[in-house]
Amino acid sequence: MGLMGETLTEILIPVSAIIGIVFALVQWYLVSKVRVSSESFGANNGYSERLIEDEEESIDSDGVVIKCAEIQNAISVGATSFLFTEYKYLSIFVVVFGAIIFLFLGSVKGFSTQSEPCTYNKANLCKPALANAIFTTVAFLLGAVTSVLSGFLGMKIATYANARTTLEARKGVGKAFITAFRSGAVMGFLLAANGLLVLYISIYLFGLYYGDDWEGLYESITGYGLGGSSMALFGRVGGGIYTKAADVGADLVGKVERNIPEDDPRNPAVIADNVGDNVGDIAGMGSDLFGSYAESSCAALFVASISSIGINHDFSAMAYPLIISSMGIVVCLITTLFATDIFEIKNVTEIEPTLKRQLLISTILMTVGIAIVSFVALPSEFTLFNFGTEKLVKNWYLFICVSIGLWAGLVIGYITEYYTSNAYSPVQDVADSCRTGAATNVIFGLALGYKSVIIPIFAIAIAIYVSFSLAAMYGIAVAALGMLSTIATGLAIDAYGPISDNAGGIAEMAGMSHKIRERTDALDAAGNTTAAIGKGFAIGSAALVSLALFGAFVSRAGIESVDVLTPKVFIGLIVGAMLPYWFSAMTMKSVGSAALKMVEEVRRQFNTIPGIMEGTTKPDYATCVKISTDASLKEMIPPGALVMLTPLIAGTFFGVETLAGVLAGSLVSGVQVAISASNTGGAWDNAKKYIEAGASDHARTLGPKGSDPHKAAVIGDTIGDPLKDTSGPSLNILIKLMAVESLVFAPFFATHGGLLFKWL
Amino acid sequence: MGLMGETLTEILIPVSAIIGIVFALVQWYLVSKVRVSSESFGANNGYSERLIEDEEESIDSDGVVIKCAEIQNAISVGATSFLFTEYKYLSIFVVVFGAIIFLFLGSVKGFSTQSEPCTYNKANLCKPALANAIFTTVAFLLGAVTSVLSGFLGMKIATYANARTTLEARKGVGKAFITAFRSGAVMGFLLAANGLLVLYISIYLFGLYYGDDWEGLYESITGYGLGGSSMALFGRVGGGIYTKAADVGADLVGKVERNIPEDDPRNPAVIADNVGDNVGDIAGMGSDLFGSYAESSCAALFVASISSIGINHDFSAMAYPLIISSMGIVVCLITTLFATDIFEIKNVTEIEPTLKRQLLISTILMTVGIAIVSFVALPSEFTLFNFGTEKLVKNWYLFICVSIGLWAGLVIGYITEYYTSNAYSPVQDVADSCRTGAATNVIFGLALGYKSVIIPIFAIAIAIYVSFSLAAMYGIAVAALGMLSTIATGLAIDAYGPISDNAGGIAEMAGMSHKIRERTDALDAAGNTTAAIGKGFAIGSAALVSLALFGAFVSRAGIESVDVLTPKVFIGLIVGAMLPYWFSAMTMKSVGSAALKMVEEVRRQFNTIPGIMEGTTKPDYATCVKISTDASLKEMIPPGALVMLTPLIAGTFFGVETLAGVLAGSLVSGVQVAISASNTGGAWDNAKKYIEAGASDHARTLGPKGSDPHKAAVIGDTIGDPLKDTSGPSLNILIKLMAVESLVFAPFFATHGGLLFKWL
Repeated sequence: MGLMGETLTEILIPVSAIIGIVFALVQWYLVSKVRVSSESFGANNGYSERLIEDEEESIDSDGVVIKCAEIQNAISVGATSFLFTEYKYLSIFVVVFGAIIFLFLGSVKGFSTQSEPCTYNKANLCKPALANAIFTTVAFLLGAVTSVLSGFLGMKIATYANARTTLEARKGVGKAFITAFRSGAVMGFLLAANGLLVLYISIYLFGLYYGDDWEGLYESITGYGLGGSSMALFGRVGGGIYTKAADVGADLVGKVERNIPEDDPRNPAVIADNVGDNVGDIAGMGSDLFGSYAESSCAALFVASISSIGINHDFSAMAYPLIISSMGIVVCLITTLFATDIFEIKNVTEIEPTLKRQLLISTILMTVGIAIVSFVALPSEFTLFNFGTEKLVKNWYLFICVSIGLWAGLVIGYITEYYTSNAYSPVQDVADSCRTGAATNVIFGLALGYKSVIIPIFAIAIAIYVSFSLAAMYGIAVAALGMLSTIATGLAIDAYGPISDNAGGIAEMAGMSHKIRERTDALDAAGNTTAAIGKGFAIGSAALVSLALFGAFVSRAGIESVDVLTPKVFIGLIVGAMLPYWFSAMTMKSVGSAALKMVEEVRRQFNTIPGIMEGTTKPDYATCVKISTDASLKEMIPPGALVMLTPLIAGTFFGVETLAGVLAGSLVSGVQVAISASNTGGAWDNAKKYIEAGASDHARTLGPKGSDPHKAAVIGDTIGDPLKDTSGPSLNILIKLMAVESLVFAPFFATHGGLLFKWL
Repeated sequence: MGLMGETLTEILIPVSAIIGIVFALVQWYLVSKVRVSSESFGANNGYSERLIEDEEESIDSDGVVIKCAEIQNAISVGATSFLFTEYKYLSIFVVVFGAIIFLFLGSVKGFSTQSEPCTYNKANLCKPALANAIFTTVAFLLGAVTSVLSGFLGMKIATYANARTTLEARKGVGKAFITAFRSGAVMGFLLAANGLLVLYISIYLFGLYYGDDWEGLYESITGYGLGGSSMALFGRVGGGIYTKAADVGADLVGKVERNIPEDDPRNPAVIADNVGDNVGDIAGMGSDLFGSYAESSCAALFVASISSIGINHDFSAMAYPLIISSMGIVVCLITTLFATDIFEIKNVTEIEPTLKRQLLISTILMTVGIAIVSFVALPSEFTLFNFGTEKLVKNWYLFICVSIGLWAGLVIGYITEYYTSNAYSPVQDVADSCRTGAATNVIFGLALGYKSVIIPIFAIAIAIYVSFSLAAMYGIAVAALGMLSTIATGLAIDAYGPISDNAGGIAEMAGMSHKIRERTDALDAAGNTTAAIGKGFAIGSAALVSLALFGAFVSRAGIESVDVLTPKVFIGLIVGAMLPYWFSAMTMKSVGSAALKMVEEVRRQFNTIPGIMEGTTKPDYATCVKISTDASLKEMIPPGALVMLTPLIAGTFFGVETLAGVLAGSLVSGVQVAISASNTGGAWDNAKKYIEAGASDHARTLGPKGSDPHKAAVIGDTIGDPLKDTSGPSLNILIKLMAVESLVFAPFFATHGGLLFKWL
């Protein structure tokens, strides 16, 4: 038994979750002190303190604040309405898929209500399969609701914060940074704490029924991960198509044909574009990372439940994954204070280092935290199941597993930054290749993306080797948790990006001065890099999580080994490796088609509505919003179906060996496609920003805006949009979701699967 | 024992090889009747017959013939000189790597000269490991020389045929087609027959020493495949960089900046571009397909040698893979007659159907051929080794294995045609997306490439499942041979492409009329599609071959299973899946950088040499040739080293399990990257041609040349160049080569490998 008693564990987990929520609320309160409502007009001029001396917009500030409030409101209303429509469709999916889960799992033992001897602890009696079917379905619903809530809250916070960031930019870059960062932190902490709390409460409530049957309890809890991730898939894909259809459409006509700046209010697609940032990058990403977190926790809990920890009913050791997450919340809280209270940003060049420092600080502190948790929560040694054999592990093994996941995440983050930030040579080389046109820009950008895969893959491979060797699949699962333990900080710096992007858009639309726009652009450029870092984390953790889920699936399906040199496995492997391409083809084509429609609409408005280009008539924003909405809701179905149906078809018709091959193939292939797509897109975006900013002699030889190299860079940026914001980040959900779905349905596949081979 | 006796087998194989060579020489003779030398001037005006009445270039034909002869000579001299330089470098590599093979394999038993009991047939005494080391090295050298010879001969034929095709185009499209096609056939038959003959003679000569020790004999013969493929790698990569640096450089300045047509003699890079077609698409591809052929034969022979066929010394069954290839030569000979003598092409629209019909005819005839060979050469049943267990197979099982490989090849060919020919909607959609600019063109093109992977992968998966289930690894090896059995026809239609491309270039440079250029353009457009089909075959067969080699490696290394759920294998799998990206990053960056240098040189010449644009001064072609040569020789080293060193490092330091993971990972991931890259590039090229040709109402709304959609299409085409001609086709060599290298070094890795894990 670990040093930490059961009671202490039962108190500490919910308490740290509540601390996280309180901290998020405090940050929210601090952000809310920046006022954008009309009430605050007058003496305090946009915010609670009096204006500082060098305020350059004081003359027209009332008008500016009203305009900002209006735009913010339009974005918020658009985003809310889209999400509600999306959730309406998703609720149908949730009900149907919930029924499928119940029927498939219930049928495993013919809907029997008889208790049976447990699989791993034969001495015990376990609850009937029907109960597992019911509770898995309930867990699925809980996961889905929590995921949707996470995305929705994130969106609300982001649309609450964007105009406030713009207004604070009038005071200086430091103030604006703090506002954007605090808002990101609200989202990060709410998500992390909420995810932990709901999971903890579910386990507690399920435990009231399951009692001693921990196998059944943690088996049904895996439904939580499935619910979370399936919502994340639709959120990412739907949101991704929405945002990029609008973005590509707006850029192609506005920037390329009409030569008007980005986010210009004359562009009819500009509101749709800004709404898109919030529903895609914010709500989608929130759901995604919540899904990763839920899945890695479920994978770790499930593996632990069938090890000696579960059989001996050592609750504090069993709850180790949750305690790690609790510790993560505390560590991230301290880390956030470094950015908001200890260091102050005075200069645009300090933004990126500050965000990077957040990663480093949280990683170092968390390493100490992991050490503490590992020594107090775990017994000094215990046994784990490793595909039929038993494996003796010590508590410091697990310290190493969690830590290596954590540090691998940092390496991936830093490498991603190197390849996507315009402070380093890779992006500068891409920018330089624009000299000879769009073709060389694209060739160099694709090559950069391919190259950026190398080190992250080695980092993941080392993390897998070490944690696998030390603690088998449990090691992988906790390594994934380690990478995600600082999720609150990761989300904070990730959400910071789209908030700054929106803030810039609002500044442009509200007609604020060039100086303000420069500040928001600097915040945004750093945001592009942190967005890429966030995607790197999401992908790296997805790789580890899906391997852990894959291992749990194999254990639960009762397969002894997954031998590549058997025909069933190999065909699964090669078809699985193809799925990311099929999926990307669908999502990219969707963005392309939706963007074409958007282009036609925007062109139509420019050509038929007089006075748009002069700014005397308002364009018809609503039609553009509708095009994005319709396209994303319609187009998210085929890729969603591909991901959700593949495990069901492979498992039911081809059996668990082929399905295992499919999971392994899609994992090893999808990771590469996802990393290269995200980084290529991020690099093109920042190459364009590098030329636009013209901050070095080299950059100035390529610019200014409108020069041939700049035009080539804009083409690259546009191509990168669907890669980095639609297909790339959706792929990590593909690999996780197929794995967790296989795990949930494993009992069914093991009993009734492989129909085709049985018939032949 | 099969019905076919040993003596009959010993006669039939060399006889059919010689028939193939004679047929190639006859075709060559027919091509040579079109005269381009100055001797023929006068009455017969360019060719042996008198001019037909509608000859439109008769007035200036003497001048035209001289010009064509000059250009052809320049291309031929450039290509020969490049290949000689390349071979000089390669000879150093061959010597060094030959020494490595000898040292590594010799050290397995400490350079002992003692005979040992055989591994599979314990009753027999096998030759010492030192002998195997020597003979493997010799086989490696033979393979390398044959590969180089194949590439060189192909290039010679192609440069001999291109101007002749141009001249024949004056008589009509049918005559030009026959000339180009016959020349392709010369290459196809020479390669297929030569590969078979050298392999057969090697086996015979090695047999003089080995006698009864078939294990040792066929183990050392695998060196032949390694030699062939390693030359192919450098040929493909070096040639690919050469041709695309020139092509991209020429297009970016000539077409995009200066608005002069493709292949315009005023473009300084034009000769380098045409030389590139011959060293990259012809010599590189010849080496590549020869490598596939050699490897699949070696894999099949090796697996057979350790089965009951080998142990019972049933020579006609043992030679089954070679008899299949012999039958293939005869079948292709008949198939060729359909194109050259039975059907006649009168119209440009008949070109593509004729080429497609070649594939179909050869496949149908070959199916009959396989049936005959399977029933006369094989015993009605025999046992095969399947990773430790024995498997009983019947002769009709093997008929199915070979046939399914053959038909899978046809499916891949037809699907490739569907996705890359501008007669169908996928390419037309890509062309249509050019309306909104280069960005949507690139997005749609990438999505098309990703999508085009789906059906080929299913075809490969079905072929693998069936042949694997019926006859284990031997089944896979003969399925690969089945796909390659019609290699002579495949190469003929593949080589036809670059020959037509060059013919068009020569017509342009010689200043021939628009009508002639239209004919060569039509030939060339069909060539783009057949080139993509050829690449599809190369990749499909590479997938099967490398799986067979992988299986042979696993057998020889003594691994019982390759379990994905062991850390050593999994890290191999994920790192292996990354290698195609690393490799592509290197090759694409190389093309990009070399193209940038080329662009600078071409711009310099346009800006500093007066009279180039007016056509009064000849540009300095030689400097451009030198840039391509230097770049390709320098840049082929890092990707080459990556491929050659990975198995050595993985095997020596991480051991055979990790290496097995690397092979599986690179196979399943590389196939996808290769197919999508080739098809994306092919589609972009033909989308551009679709707009240029303006053959439909839809196409005319996008054109003409120089319109904005056309400019967008040119950008796509340029991006596609390195994808389809450098990185894509090199990837299939990557996966094959790593597998065959692992097989050759397997005894060393099994004995001395895995140092790192041993130290830890």
